[in-house]
Amino acid sequence: MLKETVNQLIKFSEVDSLRVVWHGHYVRYFEDGREAFGQKYNFGYLDIYKHGLAVPLIDLQVQYKRILEYGDTAVIETTFIDSPAAKLIFDYTIRSLKHGHVVCTGRSIQVFMDPKTKELHITMPAFMEQWKQSLNIKSV
Amino acid sequence: MLKETVNQLIKFSEVDSLRVVWHGHYVRYFEDGREAFGQKYNFGYLDIYKHGLAVPLIDLQVQYKRILEYGDTAVIETTFIDSPAAKLIFDYTIRSLKHGHVVCTGRSIQVFMDPKTKELHITMPAFMEQWKQSLNIKSV
Amino acid sequence: MLKETVNQLIKFSEVDSLRVVWHGHYVRYFEDGREAFGQKYNFGYLDIYKHGLAVPLIDLQVQYKRILEYGDTAVIETTFIDSPAAKLIFDYTIRSLKHGHVVCTGRSIQVFMDPKTKELHITMPAFMEQWKQSLNIKSV
Amino acid sequence: MLKETVNQLIKFSEVDSLRVVWHGHYVRYFEDGREAFGQKYNFGYLDIYKHGLAVPLIDLQVQYKRILEYGDTAVIETTFIDSPAAKLIFDYTIRSLKHGHVVCTGRSIQVFMDPKTKELHITMPAFMEQWKQSLNIKSV
Repeated sequence: MLKETVNQLIKFSEVDSLRVVWHGHYVRYFEDGREAFGQKYNFGYLDIYKHGLAVPLIDLQVQYKRILEYGDTAVIETTFIDSPAAKLIFDYTIRSLKHGHVVCTGRSIQVFMDPKTKELHITMPAFMEQWKQSLNIKSV
Repeated sequence: MLKETVNQLIKFSEVDSLRVVWHGHYVRYFEDGREAFGQKYNFGYLDIYKHGLAVPLIDLQVQYKRILEYGDTAVIETTFIDSPAAKLIFDYTIRSLKHGHVVCTGRSIQVFMDPKTKELHITMPAFMEQWKQSLNIKSV
Repeated sequence: MLKETVNQLIKFSEVDSLRVVWHGHYVRYFEDGREAFGQKYNFGYLDIYKHGLAVPLIDLQVQYKRILEYGDTAVIETTFIDSPAAKLIFDYTIRSLKHGHVVCTGRSIQVFMDPKTKELHITMPAFMEQWKQSLNIKSV
Repeated sequence: MLKETVNQLIKFSEVDSLRVVWHGHYVRYFEDGREAFGQKYNFGYLDIYKHGLAVPLIDLQVQYKRILEYGDTAVIETTFIDSPAAKLIFDYTIRSLKHGHVVCTGRSIQVFMDPKTKELHITMPAFMEQWKQSLNIKSV
């Protein structure tokens, strides 16, 4: 399975009046996770953009399990979920560096869009097939 | 059904390099929706806090349908979904003021927590029962 | 003097662990102020963009006087400061709606830039002169 | 001179519709810089908080020199500016990792506040004097 892990120090500005990370910031942690994944596997926004495509989210799911506090670090693990559809699916698991336990899990689904016409691709783009082959990922 | 609608002008800082609202900002729109709902029905964070409780999210789901562009306004409709469980469930529908169509739907689930001990309430808090009765909401 | 005032309810996500608005969010309040000014005087980003120009900030100054708490509303007053230079200068005064006192003042300076070449305009753009004349603002 | 440097990869969500980092995000980069400085010199928010003090900003100045684009990294240098007053002064210089040039400079001034009473300290706190002595910083 393709995955990558990246650490993010909790910022003062991310902690709310209950002294825990505000739930909305986890969406940025997921994006940090995708960025790290993209850097490792040459699959970042700019890599995809070179092929004339943008990858907007169509679905996002987050399960909040525990709190994250200031002074801690979010350990963000991002896993590529293979799919035969023209979609990009990532699973996320965020852990507390200090305590080790899972604080949050989630999944995002993205589609391929022409950034100019805003039209969606119904079939898997060719570059995506090549990228998967280069990494030995076989669509079922 | 209890619901409330509030408008939010799209801010320049919310629009990304594809010239559409970045997906993470919708989580704040949902919170804007809950705030407006809370103001209308005396059910805001500060109202709940008076009863010694915080209401952290445990689950969030977002479906992105269309884009929102700078110059447009998000029309955020927030609906209270009644439940016999010790949970707070809201559904969201965001429309484009300019085009009328739905751009995003979502659901959040919150639980009742003691902000000091971080312990969760397993049963519905008494004030919540009273609030529901005062509005003629009968838990099934 | 050209000015406009707009109210912004303090959001839960804007309040930090000291239970006051985090200082960085005032920069967005200033932008909210410019937006409201732009709407009133047909001088928003999209109006300026029609003339092929963007207006990036080159200087920002903020003086924090008092705190803003959750449950309060920021009253943002934005004043256009006329200048013969090819610059856009705005002054800001933010008050607490609840207490009436000033919580923050600031100034921003923007320049005129071609968004494609990223080149700056050294002289006042013609449309800006016309806009000023239409509002009876005489450059000294 | 006490200083520390930290790198921050530009995030997709920080880039606006002009494809450059939105000016408001630099305020968070400055805070990232203070955090890194605090970690290096045992002078973070939590270190200061142990002494019963918070350090809110009273003044912020930012000069924007060049743009930062997605795909680049902000190199944030934070310098402690010694002062005999009961203030905390930091200077910031942000460079583009890709191009090397300076994109932004700034200064922040913080004061010492009791987080409960919200009262300010008029004289330098004792722990601050000790911290300075431990690092051989002599107030003039």
